[in-house]
Amino acid sequence: MKNVNYKLYLVTDRDVIGNRSFLECIEEALKGGVSILQLREKKISSLEFYDLALDAKKLTEKYDVPLIINDRVDIALAIDADGVHVGQEDLPVKVVRKIIGDAKILGVSVTNLEEAKRAIEDGADYLGVGAVFPTVTKKDANFTGIELLREIREKYSIPVVAIGGINEGNIEKLNGLCDGAAIISGILGQKDIKKAAEKINSKLIWIK
Amino acid sequence: MKNVNYKLYLVTDRDVIGNRSFLECIEEALKGGVSILQLREKKISSLEFYDLALDAKKLTEKYDVPLIINDRVDIALAIDADGVHVGQEDLPVKVVRKIIGDAKILGVSVTNLEEAKRAIEDGADYLGVGAVFPTVTKKDANFTGIELLREIREKYSIPVVAIGGINEGNIEKLNGLCDGAAIISGILGQKDIKKAAEKINSKLIWIK
Ligand code: NI
Repeated sequence: MKNVNYKLYLVTDRDVIGNRSFLECIEEALKGGVSILQLREKKISSLEFYDLALDAKKLTEKYDVPLIINDRVDIALAIDADGVHVGQEDLPVKVVRKIIGDAKILGVSVTNLEEAKRAIEDGADYLGVGAVFPTVTKKDANFTGIELLREIREKYSIPVVAIGGINEGNIEKLNGLCDGAAIISGILGQKDIKKAAEKINSKLIWIK
Repeated sequence: MKNVNYKLYLVTDRDVIGNRSFLECIEEALKGGVSILQLREKKISSLEFYDLALDAKKLTEKYDVPLIINDRVDIALAIDADGVHVGQEDLPVKVVRKIIGDAKILGVSVTNLEEAKRAIEDGADYLGVGAVFPTVTKKDANFTGIELLREIREKYSIPVVAIGGINEGNIEKLNGLCDGAAIISGILGQKDIKKAAEKINSKLIWIK
């Protein structure tokens, strides 16, 4: 599955979901128009991640959106996910591509042009770029601003997903600069998750 | 590589190594007769694990012993390790076997006969059994005593590696009950790592 709609890209975070049901929250977001889901889990055992990913896959299949696994290539293989997303502290892009083959989606987080160039050369299908806005969710995230989106757009044709601090209030600043917006707390941190997803989706007017 | 000598099975633990050089400590242990090495890393990034595993592989190749990766099947694939070791909180044994294929070694930690039976059915090449003695290294380890070694020996022919609190002083109690002894602090926690490995090795008189 390589014909991917990156428009409304949801990244999970247990901390912003709090004590609500993880899977119910994901499903609300999918009902609200999320077009691609990334499972990002850092603190659970491999078995818990595997079980969660199997459950998430049932949902993404139901709503016919791709499921991407953050960092853990083995979990992606184990559940036959649609793809993997790696950062600069994860397995090297070339190595991941070799393990997952050409059919699976490979996304790479970059925070400068040099990393973007290398990711593309090494086999990335899309880039995650940010933080485009100040963020509280991922405290260690480098701030790139939206300027890097513009620079990557000028130089490369690879799909770009903006990430970091994106919400209803600032999303229009991304107009024309990306193929998708990755949201965490802007959706999962909201009381009405479905409505939050719908609102953000409706503002991504430059993406089909 | 499936003709494995499990005799002196070293499991790494950064905490017992302290601020000594990780790779130098491993090499001392290999010089002392370690016959198989398991890299167990829980707190580092995937990239750090990958880099460390590549370095460890150079050493295990130099000393011609198998390199096993704990839990992280993706790291094992990424560096083409000789095998993977999983516990009951890691990916299911059947799933791991499917991902790594038949050529790689698959070890499984078990703490009772039921888990042993399932691991064997699901494709384990060897079992890690313990803790056979009280241990301080792995605080969450279940205590099985040496009785479980005896029971598994009676029922099954799979190679068994005893683990947990094994040291110079108690190792003779394992006589005839296992195909290898897995050591952490009994080797890596000692001042003279090479000598500690040699001493323990010399006491494993029932294993060729
Ligand atoms: Ni990790």
